[in-house]
Amino acid sequence: EATRKQVVGRAGWMLIHSMAAKFQPGEERAVLAMQGFLEAIAELYPCELCKTHFGQFLDASPPPMDSALALLVWTCKAHNEVNSRNGKQLFPCEKEPLQALYGDCGC
Amino acid sequence: EATRKQVVGRAGWMLIHSMAAKFQPGEERAVLAMQGFLEAIAELYPCELCKTHFGQFLDASPPPMDSALALLVWTCKAHNEVNSRNGKQLFPCEKEPLQALYGDCGC
Ligand SMILES: Cc1cc2nc3c(=O)[nH]c(=O)nc-3n(C[C@H](O)[C@H](O)[C@H](O)COP(=O)(O)OP(=O)(O)OC[C@H]3O[C@@H](n4cnc5c(N)ncnc54)[C@H](O)[C@@H]3O)c2cc1C
Ligand SMILES: Cc1cc2nc3c(=O)[nH]c(=O)nc-3n(C[C@H](O)[C@H](O)[C@H](O)COP(=O)(O)OP(=O)(O)OC[C@H]3O[C@@H](n4cnc5c(N)ncnc54)[C@H](O)[C@@H]3O)c2cc1C
Repeated sequence: EATRKQVVGRAGWMLIHSMAAKFQPGEERAVLAMQGFLEAIAELYPCELCKTHFGQFLDASPPPMDSALALLVWTCKAHNEVNSRNGKQLFPCEKEPLQALYGDCGC
Repeated sequence: EATRKQVVGRAGWMLIHSMAAKFQPGEERAVLAMQGFLEAIAELYPCELCKTHFGQFLDASPPPMDSALALLVWTCKAHNEVNSRNGKQLFPCEKEPLQALYGDCGC
């Protein structure tokens, strides 16, 4: 059975990737909100080590705010950093598989 | 099988409730980050109608920022608003069941 850390982790990534996939970079409000969202994950994600790692990644690699697909690729790389640290297979951070998985919000 | 809307919805609530349960209200940074997080959901959640409803709830019922448990109860009420709109059973927004479900981040 999945641990709480896994359950919250899967949920967290699902929301992060899905929000990136639907990002509308033309709108200043959206850009500010996305910055606030990513900073909030770095500040409040309910796992000390996780949020610290995420904050380090955020500082070291500023997220592109000019395209939803570029931002989605960035979230994929952030996720792969954890995959790599945990000895897991890396996910292909290419636009097509990412769009296919996260681009359709069903609404 | 679950629709994308359900998958993203479950993930979204899991993260929102779990972040509220671990909120540390004493820290100004945390309070600002939580405000930014909730506003980002209202701005960027990948479902137009959902984010609009959430934004209306956020405006009408300002989230308490003085206690993690009070904030967790608030997120439960926000979630119940959707449950009620969708004709689902309301969840008991009492501290014990909420803490039991969302208070242990496993890390
Ligand atoms: C912001 C954040 C930071 C985290 N930091 C840590 C940490 O420092 N240490 C730690 O142990 N755990 C951390 N976690 C949890 C960890 O990333 C996993 O969520 C958890 O270990 C469960 O892993 P999983 O194998 O179930 O799949 P997950 O890694 O949760 O992935 C869920 C699904 O997403 C897809 N996926 C996999 N990789 C990618 C990718 N790169 N891009 C897009 N989709 C992908 C796959 O379909 C996969 O099944 C963090 C989670 C979040 C949200
Ligand atoms: C911010 C946000 C806004 C949304 N707005 C809409 C909308 O306007 N219209 C729409 O159709 N869908 C909306 N959704 C999606 C909807 O809330 C559900 O997530 C989706 O319908 C899937 O429902 P579900 O029955 O699988 O369980 P969910 O409602 O996703 O709940 C998942 C689990 O959380 C627990 N739970 C249930 N209620 C509560 C509660 N009140 N407090 C704490 N835990 C609870 C239960 O264990 C439940 O199994 C929204 C989702 C989010 C994150």
